[in-house]
Amino acid sequence: MIKLSDISTDAPKKLEKKDVQKETKELTKKIADLHETLIAEKKNSLLVVFQGMDSSGKDGATHNTFRYCSPSGLSAYSFKKPTEEEFAHDFLWRVHKQVPGKGEIKIFNRSHYEDVLIQRVHGWIDEEKVNKRIAAINAFEELLVFDNNTTILKFYMHLSRERQQEKLQERIDDPTKNWKHNANDWEEAKLWDKYMECYEDVINRSSVPWHIVPVDQRWYRNYIIAQKVCETLESLNMKLPTIEAK
Amino acid sequence: MIKLSDISTDAPKKLEKKDVQKETKELTKKIADLHETLIAEKKNSLLVVFQGMDSSGKDGATHNTFRYCSPSGLSAYSFKKPTEEEFAHDFLWRVHKQVPGKGEIKIFNRSHYEDVLIQRVHGWIDEEKVNKRIAAINAFEELLVFDNNTTILKFYMHLSRERQQEKLQERIDDPTKNWKHNANDWEEAKLWDKYMECYEDVINRSSVPWHIVPVDQRWYRNYIIAQKVCETLESLNMKLPTIEAK
Repeated sequence: MIKLSDISTDAPKKLEKKDVQKETKELTKKIADLHETLIAEKKNSLLVVFQGMDSSGKDGATHNTFRYCSPSGLSAYSFKKPTEEEFAHDFLWRVHKQVPGKGEIKIFNRSHYEDVLIQRVHGWIDEEKVNKRIAAINAFEELLVFDNNTTILKFYMHLSRERQQEKLQERIDDPTKNWKHNANDWEEAKLWDKYMECYEDVINRSSVPWHIVPVDQRWYRNYIIAQKVCETLESLNMKLPTIEAK
Repeated sequence: MIKLSDISTDAPKKLEKKDVQKETKELTKKIADLHETLIAEKKNSLLVVFQGMDSSGKDGATHNTFRYCSPSGLSAYSFKKPTEEEFAHDFLWRVHKQVPGKGEIKIFNRSHYEDVLIQRVHGWIDEEKVNKRIAAINAFEELLVFDNNTTILKFYMHLSRERQQEKLQERIDDPTKNWKHNANDWEEAKLWDKYMECYEDVINRSSVPWHIVPVDQRWYRNYIIAQKVCETLESLNMKLPTIEAK
């Protein structure tokens, strides 16, 4: 059982920022090489899910982790408020369309988990539906794994409430960040405790495990994510196909 | 437990073809009216699945049952051999895209069940995968039901082996049916017993029940299907929205 309040949102004190940044750069370069092999081999796919509160760095992590990768066989999808057509279907309909094919990496900025988070926090769905949706999510993720060699890496961007307030304020104070400002984010931020409760529950009931990433320091966040992505791609034991194998 | 060989593929002797045809016409007109209410209300959706051996009348049933319906909010999709892009995804990926939205009727001519039928008969997938896929199908259908008010009507077109041979031969002998002829159908027909075994297993392991339709006589087939579709739409207790309700 994961208890979020027991996990620090900070980088460990003993780490040297400069060293970590250097290592992160090496890791992201390695990720680009592994991605090329993934495309060439066309046997596996990788789905990376970033979930977290507003300003927890989902965009930043997306950009940094895959900065050396080719845009071929790589794409990111941000889940926004559903369209009218999406609302007329089950909650996984728009998600299933977006999953990676063999030889592809797909990044989800938010995901199907919103349908058991924001909707639950606001009471738009009852607990019976929450339970059914969590079971449906588990079945859906298992399907991707057993039927399409998809590896699913889910990151919870673990941010402190204080750091969120600072970052939301920066969006007002810094003209280069004004475009990210959304008055509604401050309203959602007030529901912090309820969100933490729902995140914790969902994390503990997932069959595919979550990785909790302390994100208060950007450099540490980038390091942990690059490390996990790299390690995961390496574990696939991919090989560039040779002429003989074709 | 359903045993297909215990179920007749013929119409009951006591029925008068003319009377049945008259009643079928009434039913299909009623279906068109109910379809209009379904569109107007936009609360429910209906998924009709036709599965059966070659020449079991899936196309004919599709045409007859919905002949008086408007093409708005109604469509049929035939699942053929998967494309390269579809093959690079899990087996439900292309199916999920096609499910009906609220206010729609969708007809599947063949379906996700092919992935546990033809693939199993030919041994392209092992039994472990068959079991996982059947579990995934059940979870998928339950999702459509609980999360999108979808009613799923599954028809197994119960044809005799003798009748199939006649109908395949007609496709050769009758010039207006030549376009339906496919030499490969005769090859698949040789695997009849194995197909029956797989159909029976799948039918018995489905959480959403199947309707077994005797299809050796077209007029009886049309009647049974129209009756079931009509009854199902009526059970939704739909109402045309009034001005006050808007």
